[in-house]
Amino acid sequence: MRRFIVIGHRAITSADFKLDDLCGSTGRLDILLRCVNSAFFLSHGIRRDVEITLMLLGEPNPPKTIRINGSEVKYLNPDERSTAALIRNALLQKGEGERKCSPGIFVSERSYEEVLSNISKESKVYYLKEEGEDIRKVPLGQDVTFVLGDDQDLTAVEEEILMRYEPKKLSLGPMSYHADHCVTVVNNELDRR
Amino acid sequence: MRRFIVIGHRAITSADFKLDDLCGSTGRLDILLRCVNSAFFLSHGIRRDVEITLMLLGEPNPPKTIRINGSEVKYLNPDERSTAALIRNALLQKGEGERKCSPGIFVSERSYEEVLSNISKESKVYYLKEEGEDIRKVPLGQDVTFVLGDDQDLTAVEEEILMRYEPKKLSLGPMSYHADHCVTVVNNELDRR
Repeated sequence: MRRFIVIGHRAITSADFKLDDLCGSTGRLDILLRCVNSAFFLSHGIRRDVEITLMLLGEPNPPKTIRINGSEVKYLNPDERSTAALIRNALLQKGEGERKCSPGIFVSERSYEEVLSNISKESKVYYLKEEGEDIRKVPLGQDVTFVLGDDQDLTAVEEEILMRYEPKKLSLGPMSYHADHCVTVVNNELDRR
Repeated sequence: MRRFIVIGHRAITSADFKLDDLCGSTGRLDILLRCVNSAFFLSHGIRRDVEITLMLLGEPNPPKTIRINGSEVKYLNPDERSTAALIRNALLQKGEGERKCSPGIFVSERSYEEVLSNISKESKVYYLKEEGEDIRKVPLGQDVTFVLGDDQDLTAVEEEILMRYEPKKLSLGPMSYHADHCVTVVNNELDRR
């Protein structure tokens, strides 16, 4: 299993946003939408061995945690708008605990700390970070979890929580990339192992 | 200079499309929009050494050829919708020859054949193809041109024209990727050289 956890520091936590203004009015939810595309899409299908968790931490009701599981997901298209509609639908679901919103898409109020604690002990945790070791030179397991921020680095507190899992810091190259491009490069590297 | 030429086999060639339905009503222009994002965006800016040429070959007025030059481009945002608006604006420009539509964005009626013949002789041409040689094992120059299709392979005729430039066929790994993911992986590889 490949897992990606993407932290949307200001990502909107209500369904009260317009699909016509994803870049401006959603606390950069657009970045997370592109990460979903990068996580799942292959030329001829969906990656069934991938799971992504989007941590929406913006106003008005943080946290909202959206988990998308590739082995079950349906109705996923590669464009930003249709994925935004799926997320908006998830944000409308009332209830307690983790709720299924549509096939393979789940919403909860799990905190970042809880999300990390729910990852299986077998999964090796990696932290994408410019000063990390080159991903190409590091042995990677079969069960892997990658944690990354949206357009903002992890806060000191988020980093401190992550450090409890002794993540290996990995770099993807000499440049600093958008989160969705990071997911694409990681998937490519894992495909080659 | 890094150049990407992306062939949109059915991409719409009039401005008569809705920004709300990029996936459904534009002949998969959405794929080309995502290639623009992958070609140019870095975490903290735009890649100034990149140029992308989008070949729009769908109805009603093919070809429409949109060239975006990173050294001049302005008003480019990472989301699909705003890039679509820039392309739509380009498709509205009447005239002859190559016309500037907005800073760094140009439109023309150049054919695929003409586009290829306009590439400088110094530029090494690469053809992204599943059965090609592994990109990681191939020396790449400073002046490089990558040709790729949208969600469809190059036609036999397109391939034949390309072969005149003796392109090296390159593969990005064992899986087949969306065009925009290919651009991201190529950029990452070039960043590492």
